[in-house]
Amino acid sequence: SGLVHVKNPHLDSMEEDVLYHLALGTKTHNLPAMFGDIKFVCVGGSPNRMRAFAQLMRKELGLAGDGEELADICAGTDRYAMYRAGPLLSISHGMGIPSISIMLHELIKLLHHARCRDVTIIRMGTSGGLGVEAGSVVVTDLAVDSSFRPRFEQVVLGDVVVRSTELDKDLAEELLACSKQIADFPTLMGHTMCTYDFYEGQGRLDGALCSFSSEKKLAYLRRAYEAGVRNIEMESTAFAALCGLCGLRGES
Amino acid sequence: SGLVHVKNPHLDSMEEDVLYHLALGTKTHNLPAMFGDIKFVCVGGSPNRMRAFAQLMRKELGLAGDGEELADICAGTDRYAMYRAGPLLSISHGMGIPSISIMLHELIKLLHHARCRDVTIIRMGTSGGLGVEAGSVVVTDLAVDSSFRPRFEQVVLGDVVVRSTELDKDLAEELLACSKQIADFPTLMGHTMCTYDFYEGQGRLDGALCSFSSEKKLAYLRRAYEAGVRNIEMESTAFAALCGLCGLRGES
Repeated sequence: SGLVHVKNPHLDSMEEDVLYHLALGTKTHNLPAMFGDIKFVCVGGSPNRMRAFAQLMRKELGLAGDGEELADICAGTDRYAMYRAGPLLSISHGMGIPSISIMLHELIKLLHHARCRDVTIIRMGTSGGLGVEAGSVVVTDLAVDSSFRPRFEQVVLGDVVVRSTELDKDLAEELLACSKQIADFPTLMGHTMCTYDFYEGQGRLDGALCSFSSEKKLAYLRRAYEAGVRNIEMESTAFAALCGLCGLRGES
Repeated sequence: SGLVHVKNPHLDSMEEDVLYHLALGTKTHNLPAMFGDIKFVCVGGSPNRMRAFAQLMRKELGLAGDGEELADICAGTDRYAMYRAGPLLSISHGMGIPSISIMLHELIKLLHHARCRDVTIIRMGTSGGLGVEAGSVVVTDLAVDSSFRPRFEQVVLGDVVVRSTELDKDLAEELLACSKQIADFPTLMGHTMCTYDFYEGQGRLDGALCSFSSEKKLAYLRRAYEAGVRNIEMESTAFAALCGLCGLRGES
């Protein structure tokens, strides 16, 4: 059917669904009218960047205005920012798995309530490249954890549940093909490693704490490279797991 | 000495330290002049709230101006916001452990470079109360994970390192004593549980995914209560671990 699946039997019996961190809700907003025609969602960490991206997309799509008047749909909260460009939503998610997870839960319910169909979601963001030319774009074929395993561990009521982190392979190929049509746009496909920590978790030597040597750092990054990792960030495994479970065509 | 400890032998040999996510640095800013007299740091998730808190503190401290002109010290980035009120910094950290960790690494280095002494840091934030009157303030005596253990698991180069999550007991008692001097300010001391997830991790029935019954949820929350947990949030274990290791007197 192309609809977004929520997998929560409790939702049907709720009189109202407040999407608290988006400052939207089923009783306060007409979600099908506001969002029913959305086909693409692009998400990234920084609110300013996601605003700039929405402005760029409005220009590319030939939509009226220079984008300066672009309103934040989530203006009622400062947790996330959301902008619209035709059939596309551009949303910020902050940094790290817990932050993107809250946004995705509420976004998935939003798309469900709005009865959107055939939605494609793409996460974009800065990441640390591994053995690739600086400035390269890595299209993720598989999101892996800090042990290079394609899995996301979600704690549910204190118990660990393991989830798959596969992304949409056709979409990844499409994105890679698009990149080939642009000159001087170095793009490659590879695994993306997702960590819970920026400093110690990614082997940085410049945090407030660092207990390892430069050699140990390089040995770890070399193991990651050999396992197929080409970039490192902090959201991809949770993104892949949630999109996969809810029937969203997702890429990172 | 009361100084903040960074535990990173590599820092000494670095020519410049760029506190990237704060848009500050040792070469671009005179950190001792800007921050050397800071004695208190208050942190919380939302940038707007931390601005409002700085304004309140300026008023309470009798500082000039009504606070409307308050400048964001981290205006060069939209990752975090930082405001000053006399000897106090008020800083936002976003949502979740990865987000607060990035901020704390850079804040601890900032306080170190600025040669601050005897700094007290307090995390404030909304949290889900457990068997307490709505609106109560919980002063944390111990931060625990989703299995009610007083520990924080940090992945360092792919290996799990376990850290203590003890907070400053004297500071907790002081804060509790302060609350007694204010009428109608329900405050109690208890454990704070820190989760990586807001919906499934905290037993909410209204996420995009929910695989458990209302009974299972209540049984989990009851076990948490019996283990001493009085509120649930998403940053306290990492906060306690980092402050403890770096010699910051911390409370949550």
